[in-house]
Amino acid sequence: MSNLRVDGARLWSTLMETAAFGRTAKGGLCRLALSPEDAAVRRWFVEACEAIGCAVTIDQLGNIFARRTGSDPDLPPIAIGSHLDTQPTGGRFDGILGVLAGLEVLRTLEDADVVTRHPLEVVNWTNEEGARFAPAMLCAGVFAGAFDLDYALSREDRNGVSFAAALAESGFDGTAPVGGRPLAAHFELHIEQGPVLEAEGLEIGVVSGVQGIRWFDVEIAGLACHAGTMPMKLRRDALQAAARLAVAIDEIGRSDPDTSLSTIGIFEAYPGSRNTVPETIRMSVDLRHPRAEGLDRLEAAFHAAAEEIAAALSVTIEIKPVWSSPPVVFHPEVVGAIDAATAQLGYSRRSIVSGAGHDSVYISRVAPTGMIFVPCEDGISHNETENIMPIEAERGANVLLQAVLQFDSAA
Amino acid sequence: MSNLRVDGARLWSTLMETAAFGRTAKGGLCRLALSPEDAAVRRWFVEACEAIGCAVTIDQLGNIFARRTGSDPDLPPIAIGSHLDTQPTGGRFDGILGVLAGLEVLRTLEDADVVTRHPLEVVNWTNEEGARFAPAMLCAGVFAGAFDLDYALSREDRNGVSFAAALAESGFDGTAPVGGRPLAAHFELHIEQGPVLEAEGLEIGVVSGVQGIRWFDVEIAGLACHAGTMPMKLRRDALQAAARLAVAIDEIGRSDPDTSLSTIGIFEAYPGSRNTVPETIRMSVDLRHPRAEGLDRLEAAFHAAAEEIAAALSVTIEIKPVWSSPPVVFHPEVVGAIDAATAQLGYSRRSIVSGAGHDSVYISRVAPTGMIFVPCEDGISHNETENIMPIEAERGANVLLQAVLQFDSAA
Repeated sequence: MSNLRVDGARLWSTLMETAAFGRTAKGGLCRLALSPEDAAVRRWFVEACEAIGCAVTIDQLGNIFARRTGSDPDLPPIAIGSHLDTQPTGGRFDGILGVLAGLEVLRTLEDADVVTRHPLEVVNWTNEEGARFAPAMLCAGVFAGAFDLDYALSREDRNGVSFAAALAESGFDGTAPVGGRPLAAHFELHIEQGPVLEAEGLEIGVVSGVQGIRWFDVEIAGLACHAGTMPMKLRRDALQAAARLAVAIDEIGRSDPDTSLSTIGIFEAYPGSRNTVPETIRMSVDLRHPRAEGLDRLEAAFHAAAEEIAAALSVTIEIKPVWSSPPVVFHPEVVGAIDAATAQLGYSRRSIVSGAGHDSVYISRVAPTGMIFVPCEDGISHNETENIMPIEAERGANVLLQAVLQFDSAA
Repeated sequence: MSNLRVDGARLWSTLMETAAFGRTAKGGLCRLALSPEDAAVRRWFVEACEAIGCAVTIDQLGNIFARRTGSDPDLPPIAIGSHLDTQPTGGRFDGILGVLAGLEVLRTLEDADVVTRHPLEVVNWTNEEGARFAPAMLCAGVFAGAFDLDYALSREDRNGVSFAAALAESGFDGTAPVGGRPLAAHFELHIEQGPVLEAEGLEIGVVSGVQGIRWFDVEIAGLACHAGTMPMKLRRDALQAAARLAVAIDEIGRSDPDTSLSTIGIFEAYPGSRNTVPETIRMSVDLRHPRAEGLDRLEAAFHAAAEEIAAALSVTIEIKPVWSSPPVVFHPEVVGAIDAATAQLGYSRRSIVSGAGHDSVYISRVAPTGMIFVPCEDGISHNETENIMPIEAERGANVLLQAVLQFDSAA
């Protein structure tokens, strides 16, 4: 079975075929969760799975499980999951590759008449993007017990349409309970959404986990004064304090090469007059690290820098945490199966930490989980120009197939 | 005559009396140039000058010259000038102190029956603030040949009312030509509008000149990317380049202690999303120095820092000059008279460079000019809370009186 390969051409034509559901003028996709376009691709997906003999289960949040029977009826299924919904100006691969590569794996096994020990389930998780119903990864989150079912059903989009109403409208309001469904493992193939693999000329990223994120709002208060009459040494310049803090935060983000990240995305200066020293700066801080203790260290360094700068420049710096997401470390057996499969296939690879969130972040709480990354053009995602090459999709699907087979025979 | 002193109580009551014209609820003034409130204080001023025997001349821009005859009919007048107009939420002293202290000087000489050699002229320059008709110091500028008469007359306020129309409406559309009026000297008493004298506990600032100003717009272009997936070392972060440039500009502003100034008042980050590395920063830079070669040095250091940072962070930095005002050095004889008068009066003093522009900046082009500063509370100006103590006004007026008398006898 280690010689088994997916049909790369079939996978690509499936990707292109389903890209008709929600296609935008610029060649991307607008397929918001539970929209008519999302319902259309869901119907297509259910039909395609049923066409190869899968039994399809839909739960009360519209999560779709397409099951191929295994040889041992006592084993829980190995799941291959991701999502078919997109950003409003999204691409054709984010999430979609993971679901359709799962379908391609089942088709390949079907063609080769291979029966795995575990049942296999390809899963389409509802509303991963969070673009229509916040928060992101909502229904994988309920499946994993991170959110209540009622919380999810009561989410509303910008037009005040509830998740429950949109779900009923889509026709995917299933009856299966959400969660409580044991999974032997959860595999997810995804585009990297970053530039690392492409920059390093590598074919596969073996994802070791998902970095933790902490968000802060910072407000710096100094004293507004006339740019022409206030000597430098008497100023309490909020912008200068912010600039120094920004530089310090950048250095903090570089403290763990290749792992830590820090970003200031929002920076607003008030009153914003050319000849007035700014009195107030409002800025955001985004700290990321694959380990909680790493995040703690970044945060401590950030607080220390703020304190030092506030004292040195006679300003006040207020730091307010606004959100955090703990780091995830994927399961060693699943990661090991992916790594071994990649090696066996002869693809160049590296261990990589996911910078973005994925359904697997929540599913990892209830099942051994791992992810496979393939490069994407210029690292661009959440964009209609998001792109990959057919060979990259094929390699990712081959790793998915072989990793699932390895896990199936080992577990 | 060196024992002659102004009547501080009369000066203060005059300041308070005229503060009724345009008084705001918060105790400041809104007396925009050529408004009904400005016209009212102008009529009051003309009456007060005529009451002590002055001949009043009004030129074609409404500049008012109130002349007290001297003993030598061949000498040009010594002028004491400033402005009675204010910012929309202005204070009771900016400009006003200079005109009313001039009136107090004439009253004091009248009471003491002192006749100077030169005629003395108290001048109210029209539209110094530029708050109604841009640019600032408009009519002193025309007097000094910096602008054309027609340019001034055609300026429009925000409601589209021309200077000429507002002038006619005010009743101060005089017939005297603007400029071509030789002045032996021009003295201007003004509040400091900054914190230096107060901070150093000094009573008088002997103004040596007005610093030059250069304004720039800076645009920094990097590359927007995802805060979670783009490694630090691959980023082209426009905000980080801007922060480093801001720190460098601050250091440049501190390079000449007590004289150079640098300010970043506007700082805008785009796209301004919490988890996106900023692609574009737009910021303003304000450089000030009392000498042109100092300004050249600051500007060269600014360009060098920008070049170095652009290269180091792989961004582009575009610097566009938007305005500049050359430095002014006041006339040694006028400055000397002010310094000697202050010393003789026993007031504590220091030499100081004006950070803001004044009518004297333009008048210095056509007449020996100097300025006297008195402290103002917390350095606050252009604000309804602008404040000084009666004794500070009195000291300033005494310096004005004695400096004029010294210049009159020496020149």
